[in-house]
Amino acid sequence: MYNPTKPYTEEILRLIASCKGNVPSSTDGIGTKGIYHWEQRTFRNAVLDSLAMNLNDMAILRAKAIGLTNHIMIPEEDEEAIYEIVRELVRECKKRNISIYSGETAIHDDYKGLEISVSVNGEYVNGERENKFEVGDILVGLRSNGLHSNGFTKVREVFGKEYRKEFTEPTIIYSDAIEQVNKKFDIHGMAHITGGAFTKLKGFIDDSTDLLITTQNSKLSPHTIFYDLYRNGIDDEEMYNTFNCGVGFILSSYSKDAERIVSEFKNLGLESDVIGAAISGLGKVKIKSAFSGKETLL
Amino acid sequence: MYNPTKPYTEEILRLIASCKGNVPSSTDGIGTKGIYHWEQRTFRNAVLDSLAMNLNDMAILRAKAIGLTNHIMIPEEDEEAIYEIVRELVRECKKRNISIYSGETAIHDDYKGLEISVSVNGEYVNGERENKFEVGDILVGLRSNGLHSNGFTKVREVFGKEYRKEFTEPTIIYSDAIEQVNKKFDIHGMAHITGGAFTKLKGFIDDSTDLLITTQNSKLSPHTIFYDLYRNGIDDEEMYNTFNCGVGFILSSYSKDAERIVSEFKNLGLESDVIGAAISGLGKVKIKSAFSGKETLL
Repeated sequence: MYNPTKPYTEEILRLIASCKGNVPSSTDGIGTKGIYHWEQRTFRNAVLDSLAMNLNDMAILRAKAIGLTNHIMIPEEDEEAIYEIVRELVRECKKRNISIYSGETAIHDDYKGLEISVSVNGEYVNGERENKFEVGDILVGLRSNGLHSNGFTKVREVFGKEYRKEFTEPTIIYSDAIEQVNKKFDIHGMAHITGGAFTKLKGFIDDSTDLLITTQNSKLSPHTIFYDLYRNGIDDEEMYNTFNCGVGFILSSYSKDAERIVSEFKNLGLESDVIGAAISGLGKVKIKSAFSGKETLL
Repeated sequence: MYNPTKPYTEEILRLIASCKGNVPSSTDGIGTKGIYHWEQRTFRNAVLDSLAMNLNDMAILRAKAIGLTNHIMIPEEDEEAIYEIVRELVRECKKRNISIYSGETAIHDDYKGLEISVSVNGEYVNGERENKFEVGDILVGLRSNGLHSNGFTKVREVFGKEYRKEFTEPTIIYSDAIEQVNKKFDIHGMAHITGGAFTKLKGFIDDSTDLLITTQNSKLSPHTIFYDLYRNGIDDEEMYNTFNCGVGFILSSYSKDAERIVSEFKNLGLESDVIGAAISGLGKVKIKSAFSGKETLL
């Protein structure tokens, strides 16, 4: 799975497809959130972010992680930092029976932050299956932990030098729970709400399907930090283009299973809610903004 | 294989060992050399650097690369740059039957350069074998292409804003030739002269072995750029601690095979020379500096 900052062009996608292997794999890093992690020395959270970005993507591929490689980039030599990062990485990998195959630490003395980029390889649990939100599906959202690991260029633009503890909260690793839910239910589509936020959903619907989404009055209404960003002049469209706004992950399934999926997640320790549906339409994502109540078209 | 900027502590090595899989793998990037590649838009050379760093390490593991993942970090959105990078990566991977499993592009707007970090996974060609320079071995060096991909923090310190075309010459990919040579000869030890340069060799000898090395009057005498660095006040020890000084890769074997190995490399298009030997000693690397003729102890 590729994680570009904006969708690759057709030309690039063709190139990549010509060289693709059959190993399910994800590669992603924590991006400029690492500037805050470095300043605050929140290394455990940085490791959780780097794992979440990739393990959640592996969950979407319906694949189990087997091994990973890591690239740790820091602005200056710092043995304590490297030790803490490796320790937390090893701890989380052991929990999940993931081997660490190789890694590097690089000093980038003209960079201000920490970057932990991880690549995970694994195997499909039940073969490959396309993710697709189908007309009639209901959408179950999983509550995020706040900002997670994207939109930080915008966060720095808005807050400047100000620091808030919400900036370094870790991304939730949903993959373990999602694996369980996939065993019990027929999940049609899944999306990890990261870079590009809700625009990502467009990749999982065809031209005759719309997604209707709202988290107004839901258990997944946006965290305070999102309201603060909104009040700083970011409009509805940009909010849902850039941030998860409370929803870290979306799954779709038959409407008959909706409530049971929500209670299954609850048993697994995750808060979720029904936040929308896939209906006949024109390939659009329509969100009723939790901030203004206005319909936002992506 | 791990690529730290300075050797990991025992504590970190223990942690890593506790979580190691049995898949031969290498992870490395191009480091701050990427600042020059970005300024000069020498994207093909940047890709070659990122591959060389990893494929040469896979050669040391006596492993064949099967698949890779890539992390591309750039300071600003640049579709043309991403396209060129992906195109060259695909071209080089196809040549070698390497699949590209996954990747990311990340924008780090507070970083000045390009980083391409690559992780390669593969399989052992004839099982695992420790690299060891044994007493009585001769050392064959492979000529480098100049600076290759390390020591660039020092290069920037010395040259400041000045640019020379030697800064963006690509690292030689030795792995294809080394695979051939390993089929024909009993190679005891191999070392890729990158970060840490000749100090790396200490990891491949025991306490009762010394390595004697000289490239004075050899085909592998240092390139002009190394003499320029030396004349800028970097002493012998730092030169051999930091730079490859003309020698990109070192292999050891029986002295009887030395000349045949050199001519085999010549047939494969690579310049090499006998540059030293492993003798009884105390675990030291002794280099007769090509710059001053003085013995340098690492």
